[in-house]
Amino acid sequence: MNILIIGGGGVVGQKLATALARKGRLRGKDIARITLADIVSPAPVNAPFSIETKVCDIADATSVAETIAQDDDVIYLLAAIVSGQAETDFDLGMNVNLHGPLNVLERCRALGTCPVVVFTSSIAVYGGEVTDPLGDHSNLNPQTSYGGQKAIAEILINDYTRKGFIDGRGFRLPTISVRPGKANLAASSFMSSILREPLNGVEAVCPVDDNFLHYYLSPRKCAENLVIGAEVAASDLGMNRCMQMPGRTWSIRQLIDAMTAVAGPEPAKLIRWEDQPEVRRIVSGWKWDIHADKAERLGLGADDSFEDNVRYYLEEDK
Amino acid sequence: MNILIIGGGGVVGQKLATALARKGRLRGKDIARITLADIVSPAPVNAPFSIETKVCDIADATSVAETIAQDDDVIYLLAAIVSGQAETDFDLGMNVNLHGPLNVLERCRALGTCPVVVFTSSIAVYGGEVTDPLGDHSNLNPQTSYGGQKAIAEILINDYTRKGFIDGRGFRLPTISVRPGKANLAASSFMSSILREPLNGVEAVCPVDDNFLHYYLSPRKCAENLVIGAEVAASDLGMNRCMQMPGRTWSIRQLIDAMTAVAGPEPAKLIRWEDQPEVRRIVSGWKWDIHADKAERLGLGADDSFEDNVRYYLEEDK
Ligand SMILES: NC(=O)c1ccc[n+]([C@@H]2O[C@H](COP(=O)([O-])OP(=O)(O)OC[C@H]3O[C@@H](n4cnc5c(N)ncnc54)[C@H](O)[C@@H]3O)[C@@H](O)[C@H]2O)c1
Ligand SMILES: NC(=O)c1ccc[n+]([C@@H]2O[C@H](COP(=O)([O-])OP(=O)(O)OC[C@H]3O[C@@H](n4cnc5c(N)ncnc54)[C@H](O)[C@@H]3O)[C@@H](O)[C@H]2O)c1
Repeated sequence: MNILIIGGGGVVGQKLATALARKGRLRGKDIARITLADIVSPAPVNAPFSIETKVCDIADATSVAETIAQDDDVIYLLAAIVSGQAETDFDLGMNVNLHGPLNVLERCRALGTCPVVVFTSSIAVYGGEVTDPLGDHSNLNPQTSYGGQKAIAEILINDYTRKGFIDGRGFRLPTISVRPGKANLAASSFMSSILREPLNGVEAVCPVDDNFLHYYLSPRKCAENLVIGAEVAASDLGMNRCMQMPGRTWSIRQLIDAMTAVAGPEPAKLIRWEDQPEVRRIVSGWKWDIHADKAERLGLGADDSFEDNVRYYLEEDK
Repeated sequence: MNILIIGGGGVVGQKLATALARKGRLRGKDIARITLADIVSPAPVNAPFSIETKVCDIADATSVAETIAQDDDVIYLLAAIVSGQAETDFDLGMNVNLHGPLNVLERCRALGTCPVVVFTSSIAVYGGEVTDPLGDHSNLNPQTSYGGQKAIAEILINDYTRKGFIDGRGFRLPTISVRPGKANLAASSFMSSILREPLNGVEAVCPVDDNFLHYYLSPRKCAENLVIGAEVAASDLGMNRCMQMPGRTWSIRQLIDAMTAVAGPEPAKLIRWEDQPEVRRIVSGWKWDIHADKAERLGLGADDSFEDNVRYYLEEDK
């Protein structure tokens, strides 16, 4: 079993590689090799089998052809430009988030090996005048370029699967929190930084009200779900290979209370409240009344309480 | 008012050009020019203003750049590879139906003129395990490459509109019947040929049962709807620029009975019933319980009875 993680240098990619290294097996076979590919040389992870790293630009078909090998059995396609950046740099978003998946799928098709391809979509595919609750059977009416590009990639994953070019699976990730590392250009970045920074004794800005609701998942659970996502039988996936990944809906207040319950009252004092209209405009178009029936049926799951999310961060990342 | 019809040599393009020529005005302005562009030199139509023809391949960005002019106010994007052909020639479908719209949208963006772009999507965007009835707010889960490519173009129309690059509108056309001309590679081709050929004294094959239900519109009504589609105010379109175009659901039996009511009992005798598994497989995935609430609110409409469809064909096309 050879696994390629494209975007393997990112937060989810690293968590996933670590989870796979710990597990040692996938789809009933011992893992022989994990290749981490990313546009910036990805950090290797510890594993009892071969870990390779490759530099790859998914926006470039030649680079993709050099990255995806004949003997890659499972390909995780995680590489993406985040929402805020895809909105300000339209060309970059189109090149990476639309042509990137297309290049990957075309390479798989050219190889003719029908690999399992696990794609990370996003809840940013929901939006517009579609009525709540949202989930597997909702109309995708994204209101950002990032969401549009993810929705397009979902359709491609489905069609390339239907044609027998890949065995595709797509999961709409909830917002990952507490996300380790630095703040990024995602409009959702604050949903981690208002916890991560205070837990590290650093001030953070919250650009929305504390009753702002959103749909979350911890990085650990996300990685576990992506492992299961590669393992579920193709025959259990039905006529849409893309589905909601389970998460839980919390208010900003609940996030902060969970942090206080786990880490005491000091961190919350480091949150500064400051309205940021552009962030507010983007995130207020996002939906939070979201259900993941199909994925739950397939064995994917969410965190029990946000206190877990805080604990995972303290245990694994701080 | 300068209008460009890409795919202007096709059935809908020619009907649309004729309807516009007759009307003389669009969006409150006199029409100065209609340009018909197509991969095969399109037939000009009679008009009291300038009619130009251009040869253009929408799969080729350079050709698209030469075709779309700075002073084109309204662009109809009708050029496409039909369902049956997109299924057998995957590359051709991707190039024309996905990269084609992308090339057109990128050219509009480069021009910076924010033209009105009217795109013809299809009911082939519906499918899978989505529950009936279908319409504006349905999840698009196409089960053909053609449907997938149309669904992708819808998302692009929405995003390029949201970004201010175009003023886009997309309409999911019902199956156009009675379609003049020759049978084509669309899986739906028989839904016209079982009427058109017999009305011309020629035998035709019906590959499905006579209780097969489907959603239809006459070419005349379709052209009228596309005119209205360009005229509706952007502010009335809401957060999804793509919607169902009105049609009516009929069984094959109702189609044949309408033909008999208009043209007597002889034509129906020329229909030969012959199962065609590949056609049946594709069309049985199509949906027929379809509603067009938004378009109806905007003033678009359907035929009153299928007898009208038959009469239009005899009057305009036979
Ligand atoms: N983190 C979240 O809250 C969240 C929510 C929804 C969806 N997702 C999706 O999950 C996936 C992983 O997210 P993440 O949080 O790990 O993001 P991340 O930004 O940490 O990782 C993405 C990785 O992709 C790489 N990348 C960017 N452009 C590339 C290119 N042209 N070629 C190759 N690699 C490139 C980046 O270098 C980065 O390492 C992404 O597809 C993202 O859109 C994440
Ligand atoms: N007729 C229907 O029942 C129906 C139903 C749903 C949607 N539609 C859509 O409506 C539109 C018009 O349909 P139609 O019935 O007039 O089809 P048509 O085949 O008669 O017309 C399409 C035209 O596009 C042209 N074309 C093909 N490839 C091209 C390319 N690379 N560059 C430029 N032009 C190219 C063809 O030459 C043709 O003249 C299409 O987008 C079609 O997908 C039609």
